[in-house]
Amino acid sequence: MSDQKKFLTREQDLVESIKAWTDSPFIGDDCAVVTDGVLLTTDTLVEGTHFIWPLISPRDLGWKSIAVNLSDVAAMAGRPRHLLVSITLPCYLDKVAFRELYEGMIECSKTYGTQIVGGDLTKGPVLSISVTVQGQVHENGCLLRSGAQPGDLVIVTGDFGASRAGLWLLLNQPETISNYPQVMSAHVRPLPRLCESWSMVRRTSGRGALMDASDGLADALSQICRASNVGMDIDLEKLPIEAETISIAQLAGADPVDWALYGGEDYELVGCIPESRLKDWVEDNPFKMIGIVTDTDEINLKYGEKAYPRLDLSKCFEQIEF
Amino acid sequence: MSDQKKFLTREQDLVESIKAWTDSPFIGDDCAVVTDGVLLTTDTLVEGTHFIWPLISPRDLGWKSIAVNLSDVAAMAGRPRHLLVSITLPCYLDKVAFRELYEGMIECSKTYGTQIVGGDLTKGPVLSISVTVQGQVHENGCLLRSGAQPGDLVIVTGDFGASRAGLWLLLNQPETISNYPQVMSAHVRPLPRLCESWSMVRRTSGRGALMDASDGLADALSQICRASNVGMDIDLEKLPIEAETISIAQLAGADPVDWALYGGEDYELVGCIPESRLKDWVEDNPFKMIGIVTDTDEINLKYGEKAYPRLDLSKCFEQIEF
Repeated sequence: MSDQKKFLTREQDLVESIKAWTDSPFIGDDCAVVTDGVLLTTDTLVEGTHFIWPLISPRDLGWKSIAVNLSDVAAMAGRPRHLLVSITLPCYLDKVAFRELYEGMIECSKTYGTQIVGGDLTKGPVLSISVTVQGQVHENGCLLRSGAQPGDLVIVTGDFGASRAGLWLLLNQPETISNYPQVMSAHVRPLPRLCESWSMVRRTSGRGALMDASDGLADALSQICRASNVGMDIDLEKLPIEAETISIAQLAGADPVDWALYGGEDYELVGCIPESRLKDWVEDNPFKMIGIVTDTDEINLKYGEKAYPRLDLSKCFEQIEF
Repeated sequence: MSDQKKFLTREQDLVESIKAWTDSPFIGDDCAVVTDGVLLTTDTLVEGTHFIWPLISPRDLGWKSIAVNLSDVAAMAGRPRHLLVSITLPCYLDKVAFRELYEGMIECSKTYGTQIVGGDLTKGPVLSISVTVQGQVHENGCLLRSGAQPGDLVIVTGDFGASRAGLWLLLNQPETISNYPQVMSAHVRPLPRLCESWSMVRRTSGRGALMDASDGLADALSQICRASNVGMDIDLEKLPIEAETISIAQLAGADPVDWALYGGEDYELVGCIPESRLKDWVEDNPFKMIGIVTDTDEINLKYGEKAYPRLDLSKCFEQIEF
């Protein structure tokens, strides 16, 4: 197997540096698993980078800031427990908006059985929300990015490209958003796939791989391949894509499969599971099979019987450049 | 006892609102104490609000961003274990500065026996560092803000006003900073008082009160009085103030006692301890006695035999306004 460094984006390259500097075995997955199966993860939403104020309502932003963090716990099939919220407030945020922001956060945290237990408030030039989750490894095990093996099936939850479609609408046709409830909901009120992840870890007892597709499906497939030292054959025709997403991509003159692969902010799960565990899982299976894990160092894409261009990680939602 | 709401700053008022909205019993002390004695706390340093770039070196800023969070754990006599670091990077930060920032963080975390286990990187308009600490309650107990009782002695570690003096130098006479190592060190490389807090909790088995003076000594005294529903008589002549701080206050035409009370960013401990536990604590006692807890609802200040103006919380280092 050749060096899988080709699967690294610049941000991941930086994370690799940090891993070397800190000499920490915990860095590199969606959560850190520390003593006694405690999970820790943090994610920040910054105005101008992750959202445009006031294109998203304070309440939705509150929901989303918690949901994206819970999604990181779902990505390891963990059980989230406690939340810390650190908010940087710009001078133009008023107390009503602040309260609505908090109400959205509380609604999401309660929906998933978690509790906000502390935080920090400070002022700054733009709105920034940094959330930390403390949780616990599931009693049936923990699903890492590194657990894929050749022959495993590649599975996903939900819809891809929907969040990108929602963003396009917000930026280009905000007057039509009420016609597209699915994609708008995917973009502003994503649902962390906690129950789905627990179903999977119960089925597999921890044999398999899992992560969320927050930085795009392409990124998730690459990260699992790199961490597990495997390749994949993926049939993009099997990808779940919302009808609304396809309509909006047509309006935008974009390829919906491109959005599904590279759009990012789809808080869906991407996993690898032994075939034996999937085939008798018929009832209540929230996952769809989109491909197979191989012992190559390539991710091969096709669309039904047709070829599809090679994965291009430079199209991923990426933030850091030096 | 009358309502102690007069001890609330606007930021604390907002924290009280959040406490009501979230219905969380954990909010309001330096750390949240959750299941199994786990401590969680988070603090963010934002460029322009908490530091001026590049008046502080990346390495010192890295150290400080960790130290201020460990100080919150010391404030409850806890044992810090794991750290998460979420950094927002502006475009003008280069990779060398980023590495030095991380080196400072690692140096501080290792010095205090903790480990960086994860985090998040994102881009944004200004540099912002949000750190979360997960720790454990000390085996001898936990010291809250609410534990002070009338008759207890008010005690403090270290020096007050030094960080404010360091900031004044940086802003006004940066060419002279090498002449004032103590105050510069207090300002850019504060030492979280973990050992001191553990000594105290061992002495008291958790009977007493403790917090850190990160938002100023005046704030710390008020917070303890409010949480414990007590008053205090404080003799400011007994406050430890560095000779360097006094010299710089003279240069600045300021009152060093005013800096000590309101300057902020002195990561020292302020506590209340039963007299019986203090009087036989002679050897290795890192605390100095500055006053006594009363059953009034007032904080009375004097300087030796002289009167001193009433506590004015509007002079505290405060950040949030709506």
